[in-house]
Amino acid sequence: MKKPKILITNDDSVEAPGIRKLISIMRQLGDVIVMAPDKPQSGMGHAITVAHPLRIKLIAKEEDYEEYSCNGTPVDCIKLAEKAILHAKPDLIVSGINHGSNASVNVIYSGTIAAAIEGCIEGVPSIGFSLDDYSWDADFSHVDEYIKKITLEVLKKGLPKDTCLNVNIPALNGIAIKGIRICRQARASWDEVFDARKDPHNRDYYWLTGVFQSDDFEEDTDQWALQHNFIAIVPLHFDLTAHHHLKNLNAYDWKI
Amino acid sequence: MKKPKILITNDDSVEAPGIRKLISIMRQLGDVIVMAPDKPQSGMGHAITVAHPLRIKLIAKEEDYEEYSCNGTPVDCIKLAEKAILHAKPDLIVSGINHGSNASVNVIYSGTIAAAIEGCIEGVPSIGFSLDDYSWDADFSHVDEYIKKITLEVLKKGLPKDTCLNVNIPALNGIAIKGIRICRQARASWDEVFDARKDPHNRDYYWLTGVFQSDDFEEDTDQWALQHNFIAIVPLHFDLTAHHHLKNLNAYDWKI
Repeated sequence: MKKPKILITNDDSVEAPGIRKLISIMRQLGDVIVMAPDKPQSGMGHAITVAHPLRIKLIAKEEDYEEYSCNGTPVDCIKLAEKAILHAKPDLIVSGINHGSNASVNVIYSGTIAAAIEGCIEGVPSIGFSLDDYSWDADFSHVDEYIKKITLEVLKKGLPKDTCLNVNIPALNGIAIKGIRICRQARASWDEVFDARKDPHNRDYYWLTGVFQSDDFEEDTDQWALQHNFIAIVPLHFDLTAHHHLKNLNAYDWKI
Repeated sequence: MKKPKILITNDDSVEAPGIRKLISIMRQLGDVIVMAPDKPQSGMGHAITVAHPLRIKLIAKEEDYEEYSCNGTPVDCIKLAEKAILHAKPDLIVSGINHGSNASVNVIYSGTIAAAIEGCIEGVPSIGFSLDDYSWDADFSHVDEYIKKITLEVLKKGLPKDTCLNVNIPALNGIAIKGIRICRQARASWDEVFDARKDPHNRDYYWLTGVFQSDDFEEDTDQWALQHNFIAIVPLHFDLTAHHHLKNLNAYDWKI
């Protein structure tokens, strides 16, 4: 059987332990091409680079493995790998393993998940993986069998049209993972706090920080699953239309 | 009656003719605060700035009008205006007028629309306005009465919970606008082409370009509305869950 061609990216940069782990797992499952940002791109959402040129750096090339970095965003990475290197679509796109949860509203800000959504827009089965631990030296030792299982299931059955997966894995915490749950995105937001400081020239500057706020603790949410030590899989789509409010909005007075 | 406090941003930068037009319209409707990027931020999607500090520049301050720029993304602008300047939420957020359509899949990449979605996440009625003309010197002379009408209707009736509006306006083309339609986001994608070049040091670099591809021409789409000279309003939400595929995904084998 022909081995699948698997494209890997992330938003924490090509050097992050999370992507190194993902590469080691995927090399057991197929031919791998890596195209990842050369520096951290967390919080880049679905950003693309239109204002300056992109450059690609070859890092490694073997028979079943190619690794590149570039100066673009995670979404740029997908586009560049397909159009400048592969000149074709891969069989699967995996993104991550993100250092930090992309459950709930984090999905909107995440470059890691945006890369999976980009693959989805292009019709390639795509999965974003995240670990619920923000630290650079997060422990990824418990993730292998779950990532392998999810990936093999997607390679075998494909995904519904215009759908990709947002997979969040509990941090290693001494309790065994209870299993995998299909969930919906929890309703939440970030309550930002800007840390206001003065630079040495007495000019103001601000660091963005924030506190995660949620009042949606239902059992069918990704937040609930993570908190109860399940792996949360949310199927994502990219139709932002609020279909359930079309009728409602049509009742407004739009006549000029 | 107390005048509404209206927060304005965009992604083409504070100097773009589109935001200057939007400011002139909104100043007729309420007290205005502008916080816009100090340089173009097109294609930034829902990016936020976590890796470097943000700075704010005061441009103008009058009794009913404040204008600032900052070195952040459109989503940063919303957060900064609320948390560092207003210390409160505005009554309305408007973003744009974008130079170029944000109909169909463009909504995913747009910084202008991401700013409106950010407002929506925070519970503020929010509208993104775009003109279907990418040029810097686009003609905005036909937009006033429509933007005023839509804004007043939203100020009067509010918006459904967790919903904002993506408003796309046909370019001035000699034909009268036929009216306003409530639409769904058309299914489409960009077929990227990387323009590969050599720099003076013989190193490769790539410019991202692309061709818009759609096979979804139904009458209920935003693309159809724009093509037929209607203003297209798509109600947007930020729950990316593919709810219609939850059952489908549950039927996969997720047992370890």
